[in-house]
Amino acid sequence: IDVERVVDEIAHQDEMNMTHSDYLKTATSVREISRQLNRRTIKSAVQNVMIVTKARDNSLVVLTREVAEWLMKTPRYGKKLGVNVYVDKKLSISKRFDSEGLIRENPELKDKLKYWTPDMCYSQPDTFDLVLTLGGDGTVLFTSWLFQAVVPPILSFSLGSLGFLTNFKFDDYKKRLDKVLNDGTRVSMRMRFTCTVFRAEPGESEPIEGERFEVLNELVIDRGPSPYVSHMELYGDDDHITTVAADGCIFSTPTGSTAYSLSAGGSLVHPDIPAILVTPICPHTLSFRPMILSDSMLLRVNIPEGSRATAWCSFDGRARLELRQGDYITIAASKYPFPTVLSQPQEWIDSIQRTLQWNKRAAAQKAF
Amino acid sequence: IDVERVVDEIAHQDEMNMTHSDYLKTATSVREISRQLNRRTIKSAVQNVMIVTKARDNSLVVLTREVAEWLMKTPRYGKKLGVNVYVDKKLSISKRFDSEGLIRENPELKDKLKYWTPDMCYSQPDTFDLVLTLGGDGTVLFTSWLFQAVVPPILSFSLGSLGFLTNFKFDDYKKRLDKVLNDGTRVSMRMRFTCTVFRAEPGESEPIEGERFEVLNELVIDRGPSPYVSHMELYGDDDHITTVAADGCIFSTPTGSTAYSLSAGGSLVHPDIPAILVTPICPHTLSFRPMILSDSMLLRVNIPEGSRATAWCSFDGRARLELRQGDYITIAASKYPFPTVLSQPQEWIDSIQRTLQWNKRAAAQKAF
Amino acid sequence: IDVERVVDEIAHQDEMNMTHSDYLKTATSVREISRQLNRRTIKSAVQNVMIVTKARDNSLVVLTREVAEWLMKTPRYGKKLGVNVYVDKKLSISKRFDSEGLIRENPELKDKLKYWTPDMCYSQPDTFDLVLTLGGDGTVLFTSWLFQAVVPPILSFSLGSLGFLTNFKFDDYKKRLDKVLNDGTRVSMRMRFTCTVFRAEPGESEPIEGERFEVLNELVIDRGPSPYVSHMELYGDDDHITTVAADGCIFSTPTGSTAYSLSAGGSLVHPDIPAILVTPICPHTLSFRPMILSDSMLLRVNIPEGSRATAWCSFDGRARLELRQGDYITIAASKYPFPTVLSQPQEWIDSIQRTLQWNKRAAAQKAF
Amino acid sequence: IDVERVVDEIAHQDEMNMTHSDYLKTATSVREISRQLNRRTIKSAVQNVMIVTKARDNSLVVLTREVAEWLMKTPRYGKKLGVNVYVDKKLSISKRFDSEGLIRENPELKDKLKYWTPDMCYSQPDTFDLVLTLGGDGTVLFTSWLFQAVVPPILSFSLGSLGFLTNFKFDDYKKRLDKVLNDGTRVSMRMRFTCTVFRAEPGESEPIEGERFEVLNELVIDRGPSPYVSHMELYGDDDHITTVAADGCIFSTPTGSTAYSLSAGGSLVHPDIPAILVTPICPHTLSFRPMILSDSMLLRVNIPEGSRATAWCSFDGRARLELRQGDYITIAASKYPFPTVLSQPQEWIDSIQRTLQWNKRAAAQKAF
Repeated sequence: IDVERVVDEIAHQDEMNMTHSDYLKTATSVREISRQLNRRTIKSAVQNVMIVTKARDNSLVVLTREVAEWLMKTPRYGKKLGVNVYVDKKLSISKRFDSEGLIRENPELKDKLKYWTPDMCYSQPDTFDLVLTLGGDGTVLFTSWLFQAVVPPILSFSLGSLGFLTNFKFDDYKKRLDKVLNDGTRVSMRMRFTCTVFRAEPGESEPIEGERFEVLNELVIDRGPSPYVSHMELYGDDDHITTVAADGCIFSTPTGSTAYSLSAGGSLVHPDIPAILVTPICPHTLSFRPMILSDSMLLRVNIPEGSRATAWCSFDGRARLELRQGDYITIAASKYPFPTVLSQPQEWIDSIQRTLQWNKRAAAQKAF
Repeated sequence: IDVERVVDEIAHQDEMNMTHSDYLKTATSVREISRQLNRRTIKSAVQNVMIVTKARDNSLVVLTREVAEWLMKTPRYGKKLGVNVYVDKKLSISKRFDSEGLIRENPELKDKLKYWTPDMCYSQPDTFDLVLTLGGDGTVLFTSWLFQAVVPPILSFSLGSLGFLTNFKFDDYKKRLDKVLNDGTRVSMRMRFTCTVFRAEPGESEPIEGERFEVLNELVIDRGPSPYVSHMELYGDDDHITTVAADGCIFSTPTGSTAYSLSAGGSLVHPDIPAILVTPICPHTLSFRPMILSDSMLLRVNIPEGSRATAWCSFDGRARLELRQGDYITIAASKYPFPTVLSQPQEWIDSIQRTLQWNKRAAAQKAF
Repeated sequence: IDVERVVDEIAHQDEMNMTHSDYLKTATSVREISRQLNRRTIKSAVQNVMIVTKARDNSLVVLTREVAEWLMKTPRYGKKLGVNVYVDKKLSISKRFDSEGLIRENPELKDKLKYWTPDMCYSQPDTFDLVLTLGGDGTVLFTSWLFQAVVPPILSFSLGSLGFLTNFKFDDYKKRLDKVLNDGTRVSMRMRFTCTVFRAEPGESEPIEGERFEVLNELVIDRGPSPYVSHMELYGDDDHITTVAADGCIFSTPTGSTAYSLSAGGSLVHPDIPAILVTPICPHTLSFRPMILSDSMLLRVNIPEGSRATAWCSFDGRARLELRQGDYITIAASKYPFPTVLSQPQEWIDSIQRTLQWNKRAAAQKAF
Repeated sequence: IDVERVVDEIAHQDEMNMTHSDYLKTATSVREISRQLNRRTIKSAVQNVMIVTKARDNSLVVLTREVAEWLMKTPRYGKKLGVNVYVDKKLSISKRFDSEGLIRENPELKDKLKYWTPDMCYSQPDTFDLVLTLGGDGTVLFTSWLFQAVVPPILSFSLGSLGFLTNFKFDDYKKRLDKVLNDGTRVSMRMRFTCTVFRAEPGESEPIEGERFEVLNELVIDRGPSPYVSHMELYGDDDHITTVAADGCIFSTPTGSTAYSLSAGGSLVHPDIPAILVTPICPHTLSFRPMILSDSMLLRVNIPEGSRATAWCSFDGRARLELRQGDYITIAASKYPFPTVLSQPQEWIDSIQRTLQWNKRAAAQKAF
């Protein structure tokens, strides 16, 4: 289907002829298209698999070697060998990974074992048809950090207990990967934010565009080491929403709603919902409550010229930057979402039940 | 455009040929169509206007008469007279409204003044091209109650201070209505829920479908007069989410997020977001937090057979019903949304600033 | 020491001669007296022990028989037999308790086994030197309900997991009781409230005093089955504090701070603190927050004459009464506190750690 | 009365003879003594009045001069002149204050106008019989900061709108001061905390006592500029309460319950209540809720040796210090409370109604 043509038709349709009932019908249909899409299994011929893990963690390095070897040796698509595997460039000199030994024992894998670098993730993300992560939720966030533009589908194995982002048990990896490579998979297109910093510069009439980051969980702006409360002007599509007087403010994706935002009183938000969570940290006014805005809104946070203190921002817990008076930062739904392979249709609810111990505790508290 | 055909194409597209990158492209386009639609001004030739107000409130009846007369007499669309006006059937015998006097003074309006009944709203909603409400947010909720199926566009005038749903000042009514009738309008398609009660009946293997209600703000299920806490089993698309042990639970639309849900700790949710808010009332477990689920989910709330107490539900604060052991209720996004005329693009943020006194109080609390 | 004399001296001391520094010194000393008292072990010669349990629960009846027999037969204070035991009058005809069999096997206990009735608890509470409860927190609340005036020291055994009020494991009962009977014990003097209902009567200028209840956990006033929000006027020492617009309001003792009040957002309050917790349920104004008032304040809650709805109150979850327009209820620290035997000095903190799973979960959530 | 003797008697009373009923009677009496004391008006012959204000604020300096002159010139106690006045030593060289001009015009005041220094407040607090503050709540906190040991009674005038600590309108100052100087006053003995830092030093087996501060509002311990969450071990009387995993923790007096603690979700606590508020900031575990502990408890907060990050503490918003791994800080009710002159018996409730706009907003929100 030629979706671009459809968009074009809608945009140029004669406004005078669009009645309320036409509008209602079109809107309903578009919603239905969207729902159908969410239920589609997608299938690509996976030829190149990237593995991300903590290169410093010896036990993880050993498991990475095991998975890589299995992937390369297991025949796929009618051929004698399996897929190509990219591991972290740092492992090329790791004794524990022992790439030389691996090739010595399996000379046929010589051309199949390759190495990824952060630069490749940024400039050639299409190299990878599938990314595996081995570790915890932190490793998934690191993977999001690596892919600042287009992101391949991500399948995350947990080594310990399952997390919010790591929904596959490592023990089952062979069965799981066979299924994904043979039958395709459903993914959750998790929204990310594109956050762009603009710096006030002396002699410039407008702040100058600076750093840009994609975040999967949240952007936090807080008072940092300053003893004074932050004052930040919050704008949505250039309209003033409020001036935040608080310790800080969390701008979270639905994916991040189970992390820091929850600690600050935010709601748990299903990752399919196209929304931006704005959760204040210790607001000075009791009526400033967590808000959930449409992801079609462009948010902007200004540090007022007359502010007593600067503010600090961090991106998925990384890259702490200072925002000075006159600087601002914009937050928008990214055009580069983060596709994660679904372990089951209700994966998100399952992860909440498990992590917040819902059923267990409901039963335990029958007393009062 | 033939949206049905597009949906059909997507549904039958060969799954094997849909790659991750195709998927991403289609999803992005569908989102874009959706955004374009939200920004469209719609225009219909408005011939029939319905006015809803409290028929018992004398000052409102007088204003209704004034608006009706002005609408019928003001020439539109190149004709000598204006639009047809439907007022509440109860006003046909109201001395204050004095329809006889109105027709005596303006015999040409004889065929233009008509009366609506609740039954017409239900069975012939297409009769009305536009509905005006005069009163407060309660009058808008009543209008939603009247239209249990398709809803015409609603334009709500506030007599006192503006509310969350009443965003037009009555003082400006002539200017506002001229603009809407001549130039068309943008509407906000506010989601409603279709709530359906199923009753356990002796001798039946399955509960029998009973009452059905459309709600604009929220469905509340609580313990009613019972001193015991409610236990309700909550299911999403037939998967068990949790067993709620609480005073009750609020299932709110984004529109209702500024009402009861807010009192119980829910977030403020923009009406454009396709979401169902689940907000517990005094939950027994501290980890049961407000949740925001996708509106494509079908929720079901069961009163367990072994429950110590029954539960009570109410729909937009009306129609209090008892749910007995074995009964259940389903909640789904309605196919009949509630279109409200937008007073300005950022109407929702404006209403929050005003009602929660955001800016004013931020300034007032500089002290500590 | 003659404390009454001390109070008298303070009251009649010449005001002109009390300087700021005198005042400070006296206040500090009084606080010190209070602290010393809290650390005192008290000892009484325990001759009569009452046992409270659920007479309908067969397993509890069997355990009651076991404890009663052991208490009566174990020699105390240099005599051949133990203490007198009072069990529930209902057990005198219980086959499971089998009092005839007990006396047949142990004729010497004939005069030691006695029966309590609710009436005795009310009119002759001094009969009992110690009360044992077997069951859960509900049994302790029931015991408070029985003793509407003076309360003997209460020692509560839990049959299952320990609760907030049941801090002794039944398994250790012999060791525990030996220690208490031989060495004395420290008690926590838990505050109760005296709640008094006053009814507006036609023809009377002032509401007439009606029901009176002692509560250990909380008084709840809510909207009951009414769909309308409660409006209640809250007064402290005859000064208007606020008009509560909410689903209801919880007036909780520190003991009750771990129960319903916690669900509604109240703080956890140590039972030694002389305070009244006022916790609104779903308040309509975001600035109406949980409050903690001094227990020297007399609270009064009026249902305004013009209120749209009545209100309902319940006392420790019992005795649900309707308050009609014009009625009021007063809440004051009771002169009859509820003395519970301490299992250890930090019993309260221990019960919170255990019930809210503090340490366990802190460790479990290191992930994000 | 000789309170020390009473304490002594209680401490040495033969434990074996203290029955439950003795204990109950004594405890009740001690509570009654405490209540009587709180209702006493105290009167001292005020000879020396200190005035605290912001020496940099010109308009306040002018008002200080006016008040000082009036106090010195208005005859008191049968003498021709008034009381001695101490103003900030910095004003001795202020052109705006113009002390030379003041003495030139009123030579008789030469010996009555004196200057205070921070050192005098610390070492000779008994010099002052009464302290006036002119400014806002910040000036009152500064006064608490000045008096690190004994504090004279404090009477706080507000120049703008009244605050939580500034309950007297400046406009009425003559009437108010006449009344206090002639008739005496009732004071609220506001608790302060004594916070003591202990530093781990290499080669020392125990941390060494370091800085000590008296705080009137709160001690805050947070993660400061660190991106990592704080882990702090919290002990009460040497028992482990919990390990806090949070952005930080607020240890607040009842006076501070209307400040930062409220923003973090703490309850409003009446200043007469002898309690320590422990309010976590964005805790990682949903079950770690605000706690209110007895002021007879000694709290200790350790930064564990193995902690990933250090912590920062601040005292009434001042003196930000770093706590490194192995350091700890203790918090105890101070023996130096902060006596503030009461403007009316229900001053605290009045200040909450005013600041949180209780009654006004209850009326404004009748809509939903």
